[in-house]
Amino acid sequence: MRVIDHIQERKRQGKVPYYSFEYFPPKTEEGKVNLKDRVERMVGDLDPLFIDVTWGAGGSTSEASLQVSHWLQTYSGAEVMMHLTLTNMSLEDLDSALEKAKELGINNILALRGDPPSGQERWVPPGAGLEYASDLVRYIKQKYGDYFGVAVAGYAEGHIDCETRDQDIRNLKTKVDAGADLVITQFFYDVDTFLDFVDRCREIGITCPIIPGIMPIQNYQGFHKMTTFCQTKVPQEILDKLEEIKDDEDAVKDYGVELGTKMVKKMIDHGIEGFHFYTLNLERTVRRTLENLNIIQKERDTPWRKVATRQTEGVRPIFWNYRPKSYIDRTYSWDDYPNGRWGDSRSPAFGFSYPMERYPLYTLKQQESLIKKWGTPTSIEDIEEVFVKFLKHEIDRLPWYEEIVDKETLIIQNLLQNMNRKGLLTLNSQPQVNGLPSSNPGVGWGPTKPEGYIYQRAYIEFFSPQNKVEDIIEELSKNPTISYVATDIQGSLKTNIPEGTTIAATWGVFPNREVVQPTIVDRDVFYNWWSKEAFNVWLNEWGSLYEKDSESYNLLKSIHDTYYLFMVVENDYIKGDIEKVFERVLERLS
Amino acid sequence: MRVIDHIQERKRQGKVPYYSFEYFPPKTEEGKVNLKDRVERMVGDLDPLFIDVTWGAGGSTSEASLQVSHWLQTYSGAEVMMHLTLTNMSLEDLDSALEKAKELGINNILALRGDPPSGQERWVPPGAGLEYASDLVRYIKQKYGDYFGVAVAGYAEGHIDCETRDQDIRNLKTKVDAGADLVITQFFYDVDTFLDFVDRCREIGITCPIIPGIMPIQNYQGFHKMTTFCQTKVPQEILDKLEEIKDDEDAVKDYGVELGTKMVKKMIDHGIEGFHFYTLNLERTVRRTLENLNIIQKERDTPWRKVATRQTEGVRPIFWNYRPKSYIDRTYSWDDYPNGRWGDSRSPAFGFSYPMERYPLYTLKQQESLIKKWGTPTSIEDIEEVFVKFLKHEIDRLPWYEEIVDKETLIIQNLLQNMNRKGLLTLNSQPQVNGLPSSNPGVGWGPTKPEGYIYQRAYIEFFSPQNKVEDIIEELSKNPTISYVATDIQGSLKTNIPEGTTIAATWGVFPNREVVQPTIVDRDVFYNWWSKEAFNVWLNEWGSLYEKDSESYNLLKSIHDTYYLFMVVENDYIKGDIEKVFERVLERLS
Repeated sequence: MRVIDHIQERKRQGKVPYYSFEYFPPKTEEGKVNLKDRVERMVGDLDPLFIDVTWGAGGSTSEASLQVSHWLQTYSGAEVMMHLTLTNMSLEDLDSALEKAKELGINNILALRGDPPSGQERWVPPGAGLEYASDLVRYIKQKYGDYFGVAVAGYAEGHIDCETRDQDIRNLKTKVDAGADLVITQFFYDVDTFLDFVDRCREIGITCPIIPGIMPIQNYQGFHKMTTFCQTKVPQEILDKLEEIKDDEDAVKDYGVELGTKMVKKMIDHGIEGFHFYTLNLERTVRRTLENLNIIQKERDTPWRKVATRQTEGVRPIFWNYRPKSYIDRTYSWDDYPNGRWGDSRSPAFGFSYPMERYPLYTLKQQESLIKKWGTPTSIEDIEEVFVKFLKHEIDRLPWYEEIVDKETLIIQNLLQNMNRKGLLTLNSQPQVNGLPSSNPGVGWGPTKPEGYIYQRAYIEFFSPQNKVEDIIEELSKNPTISYVATDIQGSLKTNIPEGTTIAATWGVFPNREVVQPTIVDRDVFYNWWSKEAFNVWLNEWGSLYEKDSESYNLLKSIHDTYYLFMVVENDYIKGDIEKVFERVLERLS
Repeated sequence: MRVIDHIQERKRQGKVPYYSFEYFPPKTEEGKVNLKDRVERMVGDLDPLFIDVTWGAGGSTSEASLQVSHWLQTYSGAEVMMHLTLTNMSLEDLDSALEKAKELGINNILALRGDPPSGQERWVPPGAGLEYASDLVRYIKQKYGDYFGVAVAGYAEGHIDCETRDQDIRNLKTKVDAGADLVITQFFYDVDTFLDFVDRCREIGITCPIIPGIMPIQNYQGFHKMTTFCQTKVPQEILDKLEEIKDDEDAVKDYGVELGTKMVKKMIDHGIEGFHFYTLNLERTVRRTLENLNIIQKERDTPWRKVATRQTEGVRPIFWNYRPKSYIDRTYSWDDYPNGRWGDSRSPAFGFSYPMERYPLYTLKQQESLIKKWGTPTSIEDIEEVFVKFLKHEIDRLPWYEEIVDKETLIIQNLLQNMNRKGLLTLNSQPQVNGLPSSNPGVGWGPTKPEGYIYQRAYIEFFSPQNKVEDIIEELSKNPTISYVATDIQGSLKTNIPEGTTIAATWGVFPNREVVQPTIVDRDVFYNWWSKEAFNVWLNEWGSLYEKDSESYNLLKSIHDTYYLFMVVENDYIKGDIEKVFERVLERLS
C-alpha cells in the first residue's frame, strides 16, 4: 500500500499524529540481524506509518538496502519505503532496482538525486535525461503509473547547492508536479524556519503532505559531525546547552529527548500531522520522545501483527502465534482468496507452499547464548525446567518462539507452570475472554472510538509423553464443551471433532461492522501442518545446537519421535473453566 | 437436496425421529392460497423432513401439482417431493414433467405406476418399455443420474393387485434395485403387519429407509371411505371403538390423535426412525399427534427460515424479515457467490433481479377481509391506529407482513406502541440480546447440544413525517453508538454511516464453529432497495384496496410521497438502551 493511502486511512481513523522511522543498512551480517530485531520491536510497539531504509551513496550498499527493505517489508509488519538515488547508477541499474523492488512487494520509493560519491566532484547522470530528482519521479511514474507511491526530499533551510530558498521551493514544486505524493524534509533544529518553509510551499501551490525530518540528538560528536556536514542551522541556545553538557553522555541523550519533544509539540500546535525520525538505527531516544509526547499509536487492527504486503489478511490459525515469520513463509505465495479469507483449509486455494527463503536461524553468537539459556539437557526434568524458566521470564526465548515475547502475552501463568512441571510442555495458549472492551490494554485490538468488544476461547497446546495420552483424553472427554486433537510425528490421530472443523478462537464485535474473527483453530491445519512444524523444532532448531548423537541431541530426538502434541479448546467462553479442567487432568496424572 | 441426504444430515445431528407431510393439490385458486398458508405454518412450526404433493390420478391435476410443488419448494422452506405416475402419460408428458421439475428446483420424485383413471379397466403405458414403477425409477436414473432423489411406494399389507405378499416384496426389491433411495408405505392401522413387512424387506436385502405411512383418523366417513377403497386391514378394536363414537366428531378426532400417537410410539420402540403423515390437507390432528409424541424438531438453523433450494444461504439483510418471499423473489437468480455469502452489497454479484413470478397478492375474499382489518383510513390517526392494533394483536396482518406473525416475534412492545401513537409507524425491529443460550425459546436458533450463545443488536425501522426528521436525527446523534439511515421516496439521504457499511444484526457463537452472522444491516441495500419496496407497499399493496382518488388512497399516497423511512441500530448490544434513546426522541417530539 502506498504511504499516501496509509495517511488517508490514518486520518479517517483519527490516528493522528503519525510518524515514521528511517534506518540505514548495517554493514555486517550480525548488524543486519540485530537491526531486524530492533525494527521489529519498534514496529510492534510503536506502529509507525512507514519505515525507510537509506540507499548507499554511490550505490555501494544498494544490494544491502534492497535486501533489508525486502526483509522488513515481508516480516516486520511495517510499510517500507525504499530510497533510490541517481548517484553512480546506470540506466540498467535503475531499471533493475525498480523492477526488483516491485518483485519484492515494495510499494514506496523516496526519489533522490543523491550526493556525488566521495572523491568525485559531480556525479555522472545515468542518461535518458535523468539529471534531477524530478526526472526520476517522472521516470518512475511513466514506467509504473500508480504502482509506486513516490516521496521526495524537501529542504526547510534550502538545499546547499541552491542559490536562493525561493529557487529551492520552485525546484520542490517541480518534483511534486512530476508526480510525488509527499515531501519529507531534511532534518533541522529551527522549527520557525520549517513552519515558514511550509507556508511558502503552500503559497506556490504544493498541497501534498510535508513531513518534517527530526534527528534527535543522541550524542555530541555525532550531532556535531552531521550538522557540520549538512550545514544545518542550529539555534544558539541549543549550541550553548550542548556545550554545557557535552561530556555527560546521558545528559546529552536526555536533552535530545527534551528538545525533540519540544520541537514536535510546537509543530503539532501549528497543525503538522506527521513526523519523520532519523533514528540512526538507535531505539531509545525516539521511543522516549514519542512516549513524552503521548502520541504513540498502539492500536492493533488484529490480535496478530499484519504484514505490509497483506493488507487484506483477515484470518490466521492460532498455532503460528509465536512463529509469525514461519507462517508468512509458508503462505508466501498466497495473495488472492475466493472467499477473501486466509488460512481456511476448506478454501480450494489452501495448501502450504514451501518457505520461499529461510530467514536467518541463529547466528554463531546467538547459538552460544542459546546454549547458555537452554543448557545441555540430559533428562526430561531438564527440559521441563527450561519451559518453566521461560514462563517465569528467567530466560527470554524458547525454540518455538521466533521473537522475544512480551510478558503480558503469557497469561494463565500458574496453570501453564503446573502443566510443565508435570511434564506437559506448553506452547501456544490464550485465556478465556468474554466481551472485554477493545481498548483493554492486555487483550484489546481493533477500533476503540467508540469501543467494541473482544472475545477469546481458552486454548492450550502442549507436548505430552505417550503414556499419559489416554488418561488425558479420558479426563478431557468428561467435559462436553472441550474439543481436542492429539497427534504424534507418525501421524496418529486422536480427536473428538470431525474433519473440516474450524473454530473461532478470537473475535471482535465493533460498531458499524460485521463480526471479525481473526484467529481460528483449524483441525486439519493443526494435524497436517502445524504439528509437523512443532515436532520439527525439537530436532532441527533446538537439536541443531548440539552434536548429533550427543546425550542432549538424543534426548530431544526421543521426544520428537514419541511425544504427542495436543491442542485443547474450551468452547464455552462464558461458563467454561479450563484451569479447573486441567487441574483435574494433572490430579489424575499424579 | 435429496431426501436421502436430508435423512443422513438429521441422523448426524441427532434429529431423529423425523417426519414428513403429504398434501394434495386443491382444486380452486382460493384453496391453493389457503393450502400455501397452512403448509407454511406447518413447515415453520414443525420442520418436516420433506413435504410431498400428490399427482392427480390420470394426470388431471398434474399442472396444479407442479405449480403447488414449485411454490412450496421456492417459498415454504421445506424440501418438496413431487409424485409422478405413469397413468395416462405419454412419453412426452413424462419427459416434460421431469424437465419442468428440474427447472423449478425440485430434487425429489416419488415414482409410482398409479391407478387406472376412473372408467378405465387398465391404464395405457406411455411406451418405451415403461410399464411398472421400477421402469420409471430406472428411466429417471438413466436420464438424470443422481440429480433426483427417488422414492417408491411400499405396501405393508401387499398391493391389491398382487397375488402374494412375497411377490409384492420381490417387486419392491426390483424398484429399489432400479435406483430408489427410500420406501414410503401406504397407510395402515396394524403396526404388527408393518413391522413384519420391514423384517421381510430386510431379509431379502432391501437396506434403504422404509418410512411408514400414517393416516390419522380425522372423521368417520372419510376413514370408512378410504379404508374401503384401499382394502386396508383395520384391527377389530379400532372398528369397535369408532362404532361407539362415530356420531361425536370431536371424539373421533381425539381418538385419531390417540391412535396415531400409540402407533408411532410402538414403531419408535421398534427402531423406526421416520414417519410419513397423510395429512389430507388438514393441520390439527397431525400437529396434536406430534405434540403428544414430544418429537417436534423445532430447531432453527438460522433466525430466518431457510428455503430448500438454498441450503448454503448464510446471510440475509434484516429488512425483509417479515417479507421473506419478496426477498427470495428478488434474489431468485442468485445461486453462486464468490465469497459464499448472500446479500452483501459489496459482492460483485450483488444486484437485485426482478421478481421471477409474483406470488398471489390478495384474493378477492382476502381483500374484503383486509378492508375490515385496516378500515378506510381518512386521517393519520386512523393509520396510527392500524399499526397499534397490529402490535396489540387486535388485527393479525399489516401490508408489510407477508405472513401472520407469531406473537413472540413482536417484542419491545411498549416502545413500539408508543412510537406508533406518536406518529412513528414501525416496521422491522428486534430487541438487544447479549449472549442468551441458543436453546432460548424466544430468540434461540442453531445447535443446542451443546449450547451456543446468541447475540442481537437492537434495531428499529419506522416511517416518520418529514417535519419530525430533523428533531429525530438531532436526538439520535447524541448517542455515539447509534447508527441511522433515513430516506424518502425521492432518494434524499440522511445518515451517520459511510457507504459500504455492513453491520452484524444477529450472530451466534457455537461450539466447534466459527462465528455465524445470519442477519445483517446493509446501509446501501436499505437505501437502494428496501426503502423503495417499503414505500411501494403504501401505494401498491395497501393502496390497491381502495379506488384511486378516494380519500383513503390519497392519504396513503401522501404518506408514500412525503414520509421518511428510518433504520436505527444500537451498536452497543451490552450497555446500549434503545428504549431510553427513543423515549427521549418521543419526549422531544411532543
